[in-house]
Amino acid sequence: MQAVILNGTLSLHDVPVPTPPPGEALIRVTRAGICNTDIELARGYLAFQGIPGHEFVGVVEQSPDPAWVGRRVVGEINANCGTCETCQAGRPTHCPHRTTLGIVHRNGVFAEYVSLPVHLLHTVPDGVSDDEAVFTEPLAAALEVLQQVQVRPTDRVVVLGDGKLGLLIAQVMGMTGAAVTAIGRHADKLAILERRGIRTSVGGAGVAPGADIVVEATGSLAGFQQGRALVRPRGTLVLKSTFAGDLAPLLAGDGGLNFLSAVIVDEITLVGSRCGPFAPALRLLAEGRIDVQSLIHARYPLAEAVAAFDHAQRPGVLKVLLDL
Amino acid sequence: MQAVILNGTLSLHDVPVPTPPPGEALIRVTRAGICNTDIELARGYLAFQGIPGHEFVGVVEQSPDPAWVGRRVVGEINANCGTCETCQAGRPTHCPHRTTLGIVHRNGVFAEYVSLPVHLLHTVPDGVSDDEAVFTEPLAAALEVLQQVQVRPTDRVVVLGDGKLGLLIAQVMGMTGAAVTAIGRHADKLAILERRGIRTSVGGAGVAPGADIVVEATGSLAGFQQGRALVRPRGTLVLKSTFAGDLAPLLAGDGGLNFLSAVIVDEITLVGSRCGPFAPALRLLAEGRIDVQSLIHARYPLAEAVAAFDHAQRPGVLKVLLDL
Repeated sequence: MQAVILNGTLSLHDVPVPTPPPGEALIRVTRAGICNTDIELARGYLAFQGIPGHEFVGVVEQSPDPAWVGRRVVGEINANCGTCETCQAGRPTHCPHRTTLGIVHRNGVFAEYVSLPVHLLHTVPDGVSDDEAVFTEPLAAALEVLQQVQVRPTDRVVVLGDGKLGLLIAQVMGMTGAAVTAIGRHADKLAILERRGIRTSVGGAGVAPGADIVVEATGSLAGFQQGRALVRPRGTLVLKSTFAGDLAPLLAGDGGLNFLSAVIVDEITLVGSRCGPFAPALRLLAEGRIDVQSLIHARYPLAEAVAAFDHAQRPGVLKVLLDL
Repeated sequence: MQAVILNGTLSLHDVPVPTPPPGEALIRVTRAGICNTDIELARGYLAFQGIPGHEFVGVVEQSPDPAWVGRRVVGEINANCGTCETCQAGRPTHCPHRTTLGIVHRNGVFAEYVSLPVHLLHTVPDGVSDDEAVFTEPLAAALEVLQQVQVRPTDRVVVLGDGKLGLLIAQVMGMTGAAVTAIGRHADKLAILERRGIRTSVGGAGVAPGADIVVEATGSLAGFQQGRALVRPRGTLVLKSTFAGDLAPLLAGDGGLNFLSAVIVDEITLVGSRCGPFAPALRLLAEGRIDVQSLIHARYPLAEAVAAFDHAQRPGVLKVLLDL
């Protein structure tokens, strides 16, 4: 089969179709999405080698449980062991023995076929197109914020970042009834949110400090620092995107105190947030509650995956899909 | 009156008795406690100049409301404005216009008299001695953890640090019904907790990682890093003591990721925690629920306050009191 291989650089190769180990299904990939994590991996993050990609829709071709064969599915990306203390405690995405689809020790979905444990699969409802369903994983990650933090109608919420994840988070926060403002850098991207009735600001103009909850989704230390400046004492700053860069500027201090001491004095709650629940993400897509179509900026065949990666890295570009 | 003055160095001076401004009471101090913050101030923290000290018991001598005169009182340390948005929202300890007793722009209690707004005073119950009541402020700070974090009977809690604050926090956490272990460096201090039925460990020997909640009260970066190592994914790390030292070692990374990225991947919640509620602290002291007597290591008259500061900085010394 054709597959994208990351091995220092990205290139297309012909490799054997995977043979699913016990408990896993073979899925023919029909659509895949390029995520910022994939771009970071291509730049050396986590030193991943193999087939990248973790956002996908596909059709099950083989399965230990034949009921799955022929179903259109999406799949959770953390392949957990199911037996350790963390799994038994109901935190499978944190299983210390986990592999992660296209990210850690498991080949991903930028290929014609992928193998994944059956217990990670979710059937895509008929009313949800492949183009929509491919957003299940990032939408689940956006929903994780609501799994972790109680958002009240009286809260003022700020979402920082108008990238793919930021636009999903802003829409999710917009469902809560809180007063939500999204801060980004591109008026055309923020317009997607404006159409959903969410207030926006380019660069933060007009956004007062004192927000009850700030969600940081810029992936930059500057975004983190802006979030810190916007959140009120005893407020919550949700960290939704990892920082590949240098944290040294944090040491320069915050109001005369070092960073951690300032967090203590202001009694800030910092919440790290990663992968989320697939079932409500699929339900919300089926209900048409989240606009994901507007986030699609380009599509490429698998054979042009390297060009697709280049496209995805251009400034201002949102989701680039691979059509298989 | 006699007062300790911090002006680069600590020394005793004869200064005028303060004249309370409108809304403030004049209190004759009868007992005061030396806190780690006082020691940090003496070393230059916050560049405070004036009379330090914020843990006290006293008797009201003048008050705009005569009902207070003659009462034995303790006082909250954050003198808030009462009218700003933060005060109106019920977060007076975070008032941006606040002064802080003996810490920021307000003379403290290492003196014969102190002036404090009447609305910050709390009457000490008859059954609570001066020696006990002087612990109201640090006990309130310990209780703040329970104001911020829900502790469940199924939780495993670790408290790091066997200093004055750590010993109070461990006792407070021990009230919850969770499984609590206190990690410290001094077997004799930890024995105070053992007598209350709280498990302890010198240095962390025998304490498994995977704690649901860790409270960091060592005031050292090493304590923070130990807490980070002990807390489980999706767990809560409460930061209870400020870090005067260098944070640069944090940049060295955590499992191959920078510090903030590791917090995100493990979905850790970091909670900064500072001042807490006085009323339940006084009630718990009246109920004899917290052993504070064992924390008193020495007492000095005000005239020997400089020697008292020296004593309080010796290794292994807990609370040093000033008797007036």
